[in-house]
Amino acid sequence: MEKEKVLVTGGGGYIGSHCVVELIEAGYKPVVVDNFSNAVRGDRDLPESIQRIEKLLDTSIEFHELDLLDRPGLEKLFKKHSFSAVMHFAGLKAVGESVEQPLRYYRVNLTASLNLVEVMQAHNVHNLIFSSSATVYGDPQYLPIDEEHPVGGCTNPYGKSKYFIEEMIVDHCKAEKDWNAVQLRYFNPIGAHSSGLIGEDPQGIPNNLLPYVAQVAIGRRKCLSVFGNDYDTVDGTGVRDYIHVVDLAKGHIAALKKLKETCGCKVCFSLTKSNVTVMYENVPFYKHIAYKIAPRRSGDIASCYADPRLAEKELGWKAHFGLDKMCEDLWRWQSMNPTGFSKSTAS
Amino acid sequence: MEKEKVLVTGGGGYIGSHCVVELIEAGYKPVVVDNFSNAVRGDRDLPESIQRIEKLLDTSIEFHELDLLDRPGLEKLFKKHSFSAVMHFAGLKAVGESVEQPLRYYRVNLTASLNLVEVMQAHNVHNLIFSSSATVYGDPQYLPIDEEHPVGGCTNPYGKSKYFIEEMIVDHCKAEKDWNAVQLRYFNPIGAHSSGLIGEDPQGIPNNLLPYVAQVAIGRRKCLSVFGNDYDTVDGTGVRDYIHVVDLAKGHIAALKKLKETCGCKVCFSLTKSNVTVMYENVPFYKHIAYKIAPRRSGDIASCYADPRLAEKELGWKAHFGLDKMCEDLWRWQSMNPTGFSKSTAS
Repeated sequence: MEKEKVLVTGGGGYIGSHCVVELIEAGYKPVVVDNFSNAVRGDRDLPESIQRIEKLLDTSIEFHELDLLDRPGLEKLFKKHSFSAVMHFAGLKAVGESVEQPLRYYRVNLTASLNLVEVMQAHNVHNLIFSSSATVYGDPQYLPIDEEHPVGGCTNPYGKSKYFIEEMIVDHCKAEKDWNAVQLRYFNPIGAHSSGLIGEDPQGIPNNLLPYVAQVAIGRRKCLSVFGNDYDTVDGTGVRDYIHVVDLAKGHIAALKKLKETCGCKVCFSLTKSNVTVMYENVPFYKHIAYKIAPRRSGDIASCYADPRLAEKELGWKAHFGLDKMCEDLWRWQSMNPTGFSKSTAS
Repeated sequence: MEKEKVLVTGGGGYIGSHCVVELIEAGYKPVVVDNFSNAVRGDRDLPESIQRIEKLLDTSIEFHELDLLDRPGLEKLFKKHSFSAVMHFAGLKAVGESVEQPLRYYRVNLTASLNLVEVMQAHNVHNLIFSSSATVYGDPQYLPIDEEHPVGGCTNPYGKSKYFIEEMIVDHCKAEKDWNAVQLRYFNPIGAHSSGLIGEDPQGIPNNLLPYVAQVAIGRRKCLSVFGNDYDTVDGTGVRDYIHVVDLAKGHIAALKKLKETCGCKVCFSLTKSNVTVMYENVPFYKHIAYKIAPRRSGDIASCYADPRLAEKELGWKAHFGLDKMCEDLWRWQSMNPTGFSKSTAS
């Protein structure tokens, strides 16, 4: 039987590439597109991440260098392939940059998604998994956050663009009854594939905590700043929710199966039970790195974590890996690849 | 002294055309663009509304047939002219249609606005008045609605597109400190210019109450349906807020002056004190038309009206015309133009 083809946009990136691994292992044929805006280009004009997956799984992966803003290119791709579903990861994702360049974020993220959904519609591809973000919830009004929590309260253009795209997809599914979409709101995906071959490779200074911690541990950064240790939490530092990227990727495979139930449009969390404080609790290599306590950052909150039960119920999926495993795998990736996918020393 | 040029997008439409009149009377030089998606084409390839304004004010108006999705056309326009400000009315606006065709609404309204703001930015035009809508408030959480009321709770893609554009403009003004924008959230603009030469010309079945009433009165429609007479209001029918379109247009001139104060980004209401029930209260020709009481429509609410004080304070502007004048002018327009701007009998 021919394998089902699944289009993976932004498939060269951190979450996309881990989903490509899981897709292949689950018997799908991923077709990957990426525009190299974040992915590092490997020797053979594939993203380095995809080349490594080929090696890891001893397979070849179909890849197209494509920007979703290139509408004719997208049309051509859909004419060539018959996709059973699309996983949509492509998009700009730096929160701080989005505040400085809001038009660019709206233009790129919204137009890319509109192009994609329109072309899917034109080619009768009606199954979509959208890579959304916990940021759509804005500041938590209660904890743990569940699917009933109000959305749209996000304060930065990156988060708003995710929210706007969610709404567009929801409205499109309402108008077109034969569409199925699952929108996954990630909290903080960390860790890496256990092979150590692929992982998160932030460009420039990492926006997220754990990649920063790992870069301090490997000697690329001097010192971690812990912003605030006077929150009302167990150790005074903020509580956040983490998920192992491989668990997250498996959640996408579960979502792909959910689409087959003609589910309409669902929004499900993807997360683990590992809500821990920023600083001490349980994180193995925290004790070995230089850090300093800095003042609270404006906009930061004491605690943010979510309730995974609906995702478990709806998707039959559960996160398995705890924080130890996340850190172990992150560290394997970081120590095997001190400068990420690049060969030169990045700054 | 040379007159200040103000670009008016969608200037052939109902609100846009009334603003063109007020701009000319206030000493500005409007440059009008429209794509004829709603405006009726007159003899000289201008919107019929603009031709009539030329006659009314004995002037000539610069007009360009332009779709804001035509980026090169928009660039060309900004190369030709040095605008002091832009009034942005262009966009799709039928609520029901937006539910059926959400992608089209998002694509057209968002892309048009992004193109406009990007081209403004590229040509150093940093003053914008955006035609938003009370629909961004969603169902009122308290009455009267003021500027502190939560936004984003709208349920249809038309309203969401207005909200998304507002957010993009707010974010852009935050990133670019030399920008000034006033976003005006209209309630229900009705009435017409007192000349009876221009007015609202809905295509197909009117979405709004008063144009429907007027078409029943003129014999184009048989009977008005009043949806629900068991609301908790003075006469059981819904309470809504109305504003005379000429008052609204004058509000835009006041907003234009506000921009000169380098106001950053402001959101102000435009409205009158005339909140009245759908059915009986004060509306002159209601008593003379056929109507029937129909069940409540899903999504309708008992009452929706706003507090005009911030607009008065910030813009130094106040609505003057009451419902009698709105109806009188609407009726003059309707009776002088039984089929609107079209010469043939529309359905």
